Amino acid sequence: MIYFDSDYMAGAHPKVMERLLETNYEQTTGYGTDAYTAKAVTLIREACGTPDARVHLLVGGTQTNATVIDGILARHEGVLAAESGHINVHESGAIEATGHKVLTLPSYQGKVSACDVRNFIKDFYSDETYEHMVAPGMLYISFPTEYGTIYSLEELEDISAACHEADIPLFIDGARLGFGLAASDVTLKDIARLADVFYIGGTKVGALFGEAVVITDSRLLKHFTPLVKQHGALLAKGRLLGLQFEALFTDGLYFKIGEDAVRKALRLREIFEKNGFPAAMDSPTNQQFFVLPNSVIDRLKENASFELWGPRGETETTVRFVTGWSTTDEDIETLKCLIESCR
Amino acid sequence: MIYFDSDYMAGAHPKVMERLLETNYEQTTGYGTDAYTAKAVTLIREACGTPDARVHLLVGGTQTNATVIDGILARHEGVLAAESGHINVHESGAIEATGHKVLTLPSYQGKVSACDVRNFIKDFYSDETYEHMVAPGMLYISFPTEYGTIYSLEELEDISAACHEADIPLFIDGARLGFGLAASDVTLKDIARLADVFYIGGTKVGALFGEAVVITDSRLLKHFTPLVKQHGALLAKGRLLGLQFEALFTDGLYFKIGEDAVRKALRLREIFEKNGFPAAMDSPTNQQFFVLPNSVIDRLKENASFELWGPRGETETTVRFVTGWSTTDEDIETLKCLIESCR
Amino acid sequence: MIYFDSDYMAGAHPKVMERLLETNYEQTTGYGTDAYTAKAVTLIREACGTPDARVHLLVGGTQTNATVIDGILARHEGVLAAESGHINVHESGAIEATGHKVLTLPSYQGKVSACDVRNFIKDFYSDETYEHMVAPGMLYISFPTEYGTIYSLEELEDISAACHEADIPLFIDGARLGFGLAASDVTLKDIARLADVFYIGGTKVGALFGEAVVITDSRLLKHFTPLVKQHGALLAKGRLLGLQFEALFTDGLYFKIGEDAVRKALRLREIFEKNGFPAAMDSPTNQQFFVLPNSVIDRLKENASFELWGPRGETETTVRFVTGWSTTDEDIETLKCLIESCR
Amino acid sequence: MIYFDSDYMAGAHPKVMERLLETNYEQTTGYGTDAYTAKAVTLIREACGTPDARVHLLVGGTQTNATVIDGILARHEGVLAAESGHINVHESGAIEATGHKVLTLPSYQGKVSACDVRNFIKDFYSDETYEHMVAPGMLYISFPTEYGTIYSLEELEDISAACHEADIPLFIDGARLGFGLAASDVTLKDIARLADVFYIGGTKVGALFGEAVVITDSRLLKHFTPLVKQHGALLAKGRLLGLQFEALFTDGLYFKIGEDAVRKALRLREIFEKNGFPAAMDSPTNQQFFVLPNSVIDRLKENASFELWGPRGETETTVRFVTGWSTTDEDIETLKCLIESCR
Repeated sequence: MIYFDSDYMAGAHPKVMERLLETNYEQTTGYGTDAYTAKAVTLIREACGTPDARVHLLVGGTQTNATVIDGILARHEGVLAAESGHINVHESGAIEATGHKVLTLPSYQGKVSACDVRNFIKDFYSDETYEHMVAPGMLYISFPTEYGTIYSLEELEDISAACHEADIPLFIDGARLGFGLAASDVTLKDIARLADVFYIGGTKVGALFGEAVVITDSRLLKHFTPLVKQHGALLAKGRLLGLQFEALFTDGLYFKIGEDAVRKALRLREIFEKNGFPAAMDSPTNQQFFVLPNSVIDRLKENASFELWGPRGETETTVRFVTGWSTTDEDIETLKCLIESCR
Repeated sequence: MIYFDSDYMAGAHPKVMERLLETNYEQTTGYGTDAYTAKAVTLIREACGTPDARVHLLVGGTQTNATVIDGILARHEGVLAAESGHINVHESGAIEATGHKVLTLPSYQGKVSACDVRNFIKDFYSDETYEHMVAPGMLYISFPTEYGTIYSLEELEDISAACHEADIPLFIDGARLGFGLAASDVTLKDIARLADVFYIGGTKVGALFGEAVVITDSRLLKHFTPLVKQHGALLAKGRLLGLQFEALFTDGLYFKIGEDAVRKALRLREIFEKNGFPAAMDSPTNQQFFVLPNSVIDRLKENASFELWGPRGETETTVRFVTGWSTTDEDIETLKCLIESCR
Repeated sequence: MIYFDSDYMAGAHPKVMERLLETNYEQTTGYGTDAYTAKAVTLIREACGTPDARVHLLVGGTQTNATVIDGILARHEGVLAAESGHINVHESGAIEATGHKVLTLPSYQGKVSACDVRNFIKDFYSDETYEHMVAPGMLYISFPTEYGTIYSLEELEDISAACHEADIPLFIDGARLGFGLAASDVTLKDIARLADVFYIGGTKVGALFGEAVVITDSRLLKHFTPLVKQHGALLAKGRLLGLQFEALFTDGLYFKIGEDAVRKALRLREIFEKNGFPAAMDSPTNQQFFVLPNSVIDRLKENASFELWGPRGETETTVRFVTGWSTTDEDIETLKCLIESCR
Repeated sequence: MIYFDSDYMAGAHPKVMERLLETNYEQTTGYGTDAYTAKAVTLIREACGTPDARVHLLVGGTQTNATVIDGILARHEGVLAAESGHINVHESGAIEATGHKVLTLPSYQGKVSACDVRNFIKDFYSDETYEHMVAPGMLYISFPTEYGTIYSLEELEDISAACHEADIPLFIDGARLGFGLAASDVTLKDIARLADVFYIGGTKVGALFGEAVVITDSRLLKHFTPLVKQHGALLAKGRLLGLQFEALFTDGLYFKIGEDAVRKALRLREIFEKNGFPAAMDSPTNQQFFVLPNSVIDRLKENASFELWGPRGETETTVRFVTGWSTTDEDIETLKCLIESCR
């Protein structure tokens, strides 16, 4: 069986495991106050080109989104997000559980438009009863999006400008950031420059778990540690996060994992397209979507594992194939044979 | 340097690391739906003697407390706890952040008394204005407590009875459960029988991280998974939790870690007492407290790492020494020499 | 100047004021434990045909919605509502502030369809990842809606059935219930039979303030008083609410106010239509919407007060005219002259 | 029967009722945007000597406390309060429901000491793990307290200084402010100068309902209206609040009500003391506490209504007598006869 279900199906990149193993008997202080975490923070700052940014290492994506958003918004504010945004759909109401509304914008294959952001804000404040409505207090976008799509640098610049014109911070969910950077003209330094706070996803890009929050706007989240603790997101053995991000940001491992998985995903897409199955989303990253006849799906499923994207249709269904650090070239070539045999 | 700061200073027990390593390249489904998690659940149910209990694996203690308590309490209810309870003191208001008050009971070296529980409830409902006050909706205790003390089986039976007379569930925070079981006549099966929900702490007892929630009262927490997700406590690579608890509950490793650390802690206590430093708490577990002259503390600190418990006094200060899975007999004997040299 | 801005612009119906005045020096116990409140509760139960219903008197609509919804939903649940529903738009995020998501359904002139309710629930549970999403825990509808429209008895029966098939309660926001009942074949007894909890709006139907929550499903909101207190919605001088609802439910005053205002609203609509301005919404109640040329609006505004509904358009704008207990026939006839002079 | 149960047992002062009645048919805009509210705000600012203060009129005390505290605190902060403070005891967990812990200080007959405030803050920040604890973000005191006691001007100055040294705002709950001002050397201008935000209680001092929040520190609560709406505390017919406070702050009515009730309360206390029943609290305000033999209580109860303060004792019980705007000199003299007949 070959696996393309998701990028969090295997353990961690061997270099990450190696570091955990070789330090296992060491004794360090807890809750991120250790030297490995300090080292990881330094490496991340360097990679971002933001020597003054505050960096915090949390465990998972949903908790990171909830902690950041809850910490930024005033009580009467909500967070703008694409209707398809992870925080609006797949986090069991974690944002609302902190008391804040997700204010939805149209989703264009997972992306929001700067124009819609500007219009929302203009319309909001031109309504006489706006104090009876939830004020837009920040913008959340994901890069890449839940559909594998990415913003161009120009689009990101425009979205960032739209936020700053309205004096609201831009928060980028980078759960799959490594794959987005590998697929675009946007660099990590661009992200750090354009976002006010963002996170570098580890869970899906080679770590066992871990998300690195980078706060570049020094006015935000001034008391973040107690908030992380309050959200149950402060790992006791915090050095585990430090060690993993140290490994990922040594010798560019994080970027290599991204590039490698994206290269394989594009090869996979090419195979599908050559066999008559065009991609369903304009995704240049490690998630690829196709609409396949159910008969093809059934044949593939005998030897390959992957997800149906939504309910099974009558004759055809959208499916998702994802590559990750553990996907091998062999996996891709095996898939090629399977697909060719389905024609 | 020898370390007695806490039981979460080192990595994981080698058998835990071994399992993580040998399965690292396997692909499994996420969020705890994998076979390793299922195996761990089975092993935990067996160890608890509760074949029907629901078992969920979460990452850390604060998030576990908040998720369980938030899920059990009705909106108008609060949680009873010792004034010294972890949820009342050291969780940055995580319980209140979910909307619930911690209703405090007197703390007797970290323990509550069944009598105080009964009186609180009786007084509450005999007040005519009780609907203007926060109703006691459950009881939280820790076993062992934050001071290393433990309840006898008789005390636990009485506390459990007090809760059930009042029809409120008993929740036991077992962050250090392994050490409590090793030090007392209370068994894991007793805990499972007397508590309505409790958790088996992994983080402090040999795992990298992880807390296993055991729900024995089937009426409670019927929709726990979405709540875990909402609290940001659902690990994407959930099998990491499964693998660790599988290792801990194979061949009684969990209990052995507890017994071993407790044996070393008692030896440590004996050494202190023989040298004229009696224990400050009646702790039979892996946390030992002493009041030491500041001069002794300064000498010890040159070669040993441990925590001051509260602010440094003028001439003497309370200190805490903790043993864990990675404490060696050699560490203890080295400490013995250090202490003897301080006399 | 004649006023058609809203139904909460004047004080209270004279019979309500009379009762407040004649009892002003009496001393009664607080927080709704007085005899006037008990009397009002009895009258409301009788009018609803539900002798066992629990009835609570709160001050305002937003607080009533938040208290009821917060009290019904489990932590992982959200409330279904029309996208145009008051709780989704005009309550400053009061529902989200209690930790719950508003799950939106399409709005058909303010109404939801039973079909959409059924589909939402079916789709939700057929999604494999539904535990990562917010579960629909209840349905909120308004009767009449924010656009003055009403459900037919048949529609209400169907919506109620859709809820009960899915075992979720139906909550009806009756902020303007008196006007809805006056305009339809739906009776108060129907509302009480089909909803599991609803409220009878006083603020907009002749009271100074006050909303009467009627709980007909005895399994719901068992500890409502502490919740009302917690939400800051328990009036100290609770008898003020009792007195007002006693007055409103004596000699059918509540219904008469509704009928009278609706009659005037329909006369007003007739006048507009006769003058070439058709109604913009299919509203048979006391709120009437028209699209008027801006020149007509400007002329009318000189002598009449009413609201623009949304931003002013380039050449024409939607406006709202509302009648209430204090609208006189003279007001309507004055408006008639004004409109005729605008042609 | 004569009534001394509380100061919210009767309706409103006749001048308040008069204003409500004479304006009943007027049409004004809603939600506090009317001219009466503007007038009341001006009068209150003048009375406070704070021409720039923002003033908002809310309905009740619990909602006012929750809205103000929720709006001031950052997510990781709690509110300091006396253990006996209303927010800690009698508001059904309204503060915790907004996500914040009440951090308790010792209560000296309802009062906190500046010294305890300073020590709490010093101890808090000298604890190395303070980021794992709830930070003190503001101080709540009541004036007069729940026991009728008051702070001297000197005490208030010191408490205010303690707060400002620590850069936390001081919030004064003035639910019974009129009675506190009448009984002390503290003026309304002192309150406005020393507190950063406070409220002037109307419900207990002559209004039907209503609490006027005065924000003197312009950095606080910048977006208060949406917060008031979110908390369900924005009255639709807001002018009812404006009219009442306009009446109360015209010709010093508010102060006269306070003085009159305090004079009667002191006369009442004198009567009790002359008959051998000394006051149980050092209260110079309209609430008076006595410990009476149960036999006396039973005799008095035949003709007088008052509250037992806590559970009935075996032979004697603490009772509370409260005067208000509707208490007459005749009531006091009738009580005198009753007490004398009990000797």
